Amino acid sequence: MLTEIPQVRPVTPLLDAIDVGRALSDLSNDELLTLCEELRAFLLYSVGQTGGHFGAGMGVVELTVALHHIFNTPDDRIVWDVGHQTYPHKILTGRMQQMHTMRQAGGLSGFPKRSESEYDTFGVGHSSTSISAAMGMALAARQKGDDRKVIAVIGDGAITGGMAFEALAHAGHERPNMLVILNDNQMSIGHNTGGLATYFAKIWASKTYIAMREGSKKLLKRLGPAWDIAKRTEEHMKGMVAPGTLFEELGWHYIGPLDGHDLPQLVQTIENMKNLEGPQILHIRTVKGKGFAPAEQDPVGYHAMNKIEAQPKGPQHETIPAKPKAKKYSDVFGEWLCEMAERDPRLVAITPAMCEGSGMVEFSKRFPDRFYDVAIAEQHAVTLAAGLACEGLKPVVAIYSTFLQRGYDQLIHDVALQNLDVTFAIDRAGLVGEDGPTHHGAFDLSYLRCIPNLMIGAPADENECWHMLGAAYQHAGAASVRYPRGSGRGIDIDLEPIADIMQPRCIRKGDDIAVLSYGACLDAALNAGSAHNLSVYDMRWVEPVPTQVIDTVCREHKALITLEDNVSKGGAGSSILETVSRLGNNVPVEVLGLGDSFIEHGSQRDLREANGISAHTITQKASYLRSGVNSPAEVRLQPNRILA
Amino acid sequence: MLTEIPQVRPVTPLLDAIDVGRALSDLSNDELLTLCEELRAFLLYSVGQTGGHFGAGMGVVELTVALHHIFNTPDDRIVWDVGHQTYPHKILTGRMQQMHTMRQAGGLSGFPKRSESEYDTFGVGHSSTSISAAMGMALAARQKGDDRKVIAVIGDGAITGGMAFEALAHAGHERPNMLVILNDNQMSIGHNTGGLATYFAKIWASKTYIAMREGSKKLLKRLGPAWDIAKRTEEHMKGMVAPGTLFEELGWHYIGPLDGHDLPQLVQTIENMKNLEGPQILHIRTVKGKGFAPAEQDPVGYHAMNKIEAQPKGPQHETIPAKPKAKKYSDVFGEWLCEMAERDPRLVAITPAMCEGSGMVEFSKRFPDRFYDVAIAEQHAVTLAAGLACEGLKPVVAIYSTFLQRGYDQLIHDVALQNLDVTFAIDRAGLVGEDGPTHHGAFDLSYLRCIPNLMIGAPADENECWHMLGAAYQHAGAASVRYPRGSGRGIDIDLEPIADIMQPRCIRKGDDIAVLSYGACLDAALNAGSAHNLSVYDMRWVEPVPTQVIDTVCREHKALITLEDNVSKGGAGSSILETVSRLGNNVPVEVLGLGDSFIEHGSQRDLREANGISAHTITQKASYLRSGVNSPAEVRLQPNRILA
Repeated sequence: MLTEIPQVRPVTPLLDAIDVGRALSDLSNDELLTLCEELRAFLLYSVGQTGGHFGAGMGVVELTVALHHIFNTPDDRIVWDVGHQTYPHKILTGRMQQMHTMRQAGGLSGFPKRSESEYDTFGVGHSSTSISAAMGMALAARQKGDDRKVIAVIGDGAITGGMAFEALAHAGHERPNMLVILNDNQMSIGHNTGGLATYFAKIWASKTYIAMREGSKKLLKRLGPAWDIAKRTEEHMKGMVAPGTLFEELGWHYIGPLDGHDLPQLVQTIENMKNLEGPQILHIRTVKGKGFAPAEQDPVGYHAMNKIEAQPKGPQHETIPAKPKAKKYSDVFGEWLCEMAERDPRLVAITPAMCEGSGMVEFSKRFPDRFYDVAIAEQHAVTLAAGLACEGLKPVVAIYSTFLQRGYDQLIHDVALQNLDVTFAIDRAGLVGEDGPTHHGAFDLSYLRCIPNLMIGAPADENECWHMLGAAYQHAGAASVRYPRGSGRGIDIDLEPIADIMQPRCIRKGDDIAVLSYGACLDAALNAGSAHNLSVYDMRWVEPVPTQVIDTVCREHKALITLEDNVSKGGAGSSILETVSRLGNNVPVEVLGLGDSFIEHGSQRDLREANGISAHTITQKASYLRSGVNSPAEVRLQPNRILA
Repeated sequence: MLTEIPQVRPVTPLLDAIDVGRALSDLSNDELLTLCEELRAFLLYSVGQTGGHFGAGMGVVELTVALHHIFNTPDDRIVWDVGHQTYPHKILTGRMQQMHTMRQAGGLSGFPKRSESEYDTFGVGHSSTSISAAMGMALAARQKGDDRKVIAVIGDGAITGGMAFEALAHAGHERPNMLVILNDNQMSIGHNTGGLATYFAKIWASKTYIAMREGSKKLLKRLGPAWDIAKRTEEHMKGMVAPGTLFEELGWHYIGPLDGHDLPQLVQTIENMKNLEGPQILHIRTVKGKGFAPAEQDPVGYHAMNKIEAQPKGPQHETIPAKPKAKKYSDVFGEWLCEMAERDPRLVAITPAMCEGSGMVEFSKRFPDRFYDVAIAEQHAVTLAAGLACEGLKPVVAIYSTFLQRGYDQLIHDVALQNLDVTFAIDRAGLVGEDGPTHHGAFDLSYLRCIPNLMIGAPADENECWHMLGAAYQHAGAASVRYPRGSGRGIDIDLEPIADIMQPRCIRKGDDIAVLSYGACLDAALNAGSAHNLSVYDMRWVEPVPTQVIDTVCREHKALITLEDNVSKGGAGSSILETVSRLGNNVPVEVLGLGDSFIEHGSQRDLREANGISAHTITQKASYLRSGVNSPAEVRLQPNRILA
């Protein structure tokens, strides 16, 4: 058991041999055990150097070693659900020497990534996708007559997502040859409270399934006459309503639960299962952070950590430390939520398994009866809110921008179409940094803006975030406020209401060009604005469109530049183009935002600069506009990315 | 048993009394049975007059009567999942006299609709939402201390949707007082093939659950020593691994299956269950089309029917008859799919429970090993396709525009981000007509356009649809083609390749104004174009953007008008605005498309006219542009809908 994070590279002869090509299939059981030790030490050392997720990885060291030992990877396919657990997999598949680049620009991704390695068979940033993807691979193998094996590894948190159930049900019918390993560590991020997690918790409670036996009793009692007979055979029937029943009912062959840290047993069981026909599920129990004492004791706190500078630090939930004085937006939201809940008993709050990340811990403690963590279930989260709103409560759904994509249909039909009073607090909007393309909130302004009956706010600082949340909440209909990951601009919350909170704010009057800035882009706009005497507007709301203000701004300027940390296509700038067109004005509008490609991981600041959310880009555009040259031809007639 | 659709209004004294206010709670069992007869006759008569869905409604006559008899509606809440089954509910709740307006503009909606009646507690057009919504209502009642009951009615098709499972799991943990009635008629639309449907099929096969007993045997055999003892008590244990096991495992109290047409038993059972604490599930078995012989024999064919003109017609799957000669787009797709499958063995096709509606019946028969109906499971459908594509197969996902909203996150992350070769055949794009706001495909161009790496096509006729599907399929990446519900323009398929299929097509050269038309809007554009000498372009692709062509069109015209059957916000016209802005051109662009509100039901043609997808609107815009006046001030400075 490690008690400290190694600051000197541990000695790992077996791992080094694997890294230069020794096959895992050749290793003896004793060597495999040694390899696990080395892997654990190196993983801890390496995450200590770079920061990142390691709790999940520590929990699957034995599983990862067993899978690469048994299966002929990469020809056999391993699909890892929720990519945080793939660090050991990356170390074992030729990326040991790159581990120091983890989550840095140009370095390794924190998730599996097809373009990074042929061993990464499927990119998984959002959870619950692995069974569907693996099933596709298994069906393809069947159709092509390939003998390859397909394995999905899914956590007990991820399996609460509805699409995992959809895949389980379909595979139970279609019966492809595939193995799902349910890695049951009794938590995903934060506290998982779905019925299925409870179900596993019951199993967890007793090796002899006492709880399940109680369930049998309840069933038997309903049968009446059978009860007496059944009681006598009770001992023999323990296994009948076993943990796997749910999966067996869906058509899967189930084995488990097994101790996921007992390597020899794991190897033997998977060896036995690998050639079985039809869909197989192996349920293993693991401990998050296994092998590192502080993480075993506080698995939530040690979900990820910062890189170690000089001395080991305590746990951190975010891998980037906040600026000393600026508050995180998630904390602004959390405080606002408590404050509003104090004043309005109708407020209820919902999170899809992101209580901590969304800043709701305090709320969940103070208002437990008005707090619903629905597990990883974004669709249900949104429609549950709609149901609550039908009865006159005022639900607030706290959700990350990228995860709201999972509840898109529900937002359109169950909330907006019915004009129900639901507030969406959309965290992690814009560029999130190290988590990369699956976690950037790069599309929300575009996919939300086309929905009727929906307010969309993008506050520029902490105080504005507070008051715009208030305005969204007070609006008797669907409303959303989206704010970035991390810290604000260091602006204190002023509880005094902002009178014109629904209107854009003119921050500086400049000369001939106006910059219309959305949300977190304001500093870039102000820097360019003061350097080149541009007017700067903090637009605040994408919807409703402030048509009158835009009309005035058009009349007072010769050109507009819009700026947003959302894709340019269909986003806030596009809304300005539409409005200016509708007004019949022909003032030129330059739209600045994220380009038409997925954005890789890197630091939040670097990514903003690299993607044109910067004073530099505004300055460049302003120069073109003033010179009357517009942009150079190569910018104007850019090739089609899709066909390039 | 009715054998013909009544063409004269049946005599329904009890139903009439209900309609003018007699309470259902007062009725005796005999009266309830009579009421069911009258209701069934009137329902059949009324749908015969208007056309519409009736198979589902005929199946829930007893259930609907029982629920309104037992519960104190509307104070108690009934949430109907998949709204097709709500016609009897509408008849019993004061809307008998409006049934002749069903699905017509200004008339009753074919789905439950909150604004239509206080008895319609939740609008459900897309399936699988009822448990989440009802749970929200139940939690609200608990929080407010209200004693009201909440009931969700969900079909065996709808329960395969992942969000239903998310809600079941959450409710199993949260334990609100609520009743779910699982209406098991062994089909949703088309053929339901998920594992859960199979699961119910097994139950259905035998009243004594022979199949389930087989399941027990399998389990018992694994137990070895327990087997002998267990065998002796087998008869008594039948109920142990009962159909409800899956739900019991998730924390629900389960009763059933019950004959859903046995009214007295139904009433008694629900009476017994209504005051039980915690989440309750009652599983009933019903027959779709019950009581009308032809529908019982062909429930898929009689899912809905046309209005009866003179003589009763045979079954029709669409409620609007096609023009005599013009092919339906879904049939064009179906034929293209078979043709391409002949040529390319890598092609596999996926549908989320819309085999018939998507025109895939022929394909499913000819290529059963390459056809996957995944049940109502849009998320899984998309990621399954991604998995298949990883292995070099070429999946085609056939999906309705409005249902793709359910797979949005999967489309972004699992397909587009990984640049996987998946083709989306998006049916029912634009205005669908009578199915109304939950079924219009009004947002796809906006929510798709912001996704990088995705081709988006909008063909204007059948031949173009064929060849654009081909181009999308040949593209080695993510591509989509969206086409409308119903028939095309009567253009024959010409198998000769279209050389410039990736470019816009200039159909007529006009004077100073060019109309850029997308997809099904072409006829409107051509009518206005020839009347007022406008140039008309059939744009074909929204993505990739044909920048060069747009540049040329700008140079050759004084103004552009764009036209699409998608919301204006962020859609194809918005893309033109962005492109013209990027080109630095200041030619005015008028964007015509659907407005910023949800569009009600009505005929497809009327809705297009009413929503500005018409030659008239183009003409109006062209006049403004030519007069130099632009639009009138009240158009330009329209009030904010959200705040109005």
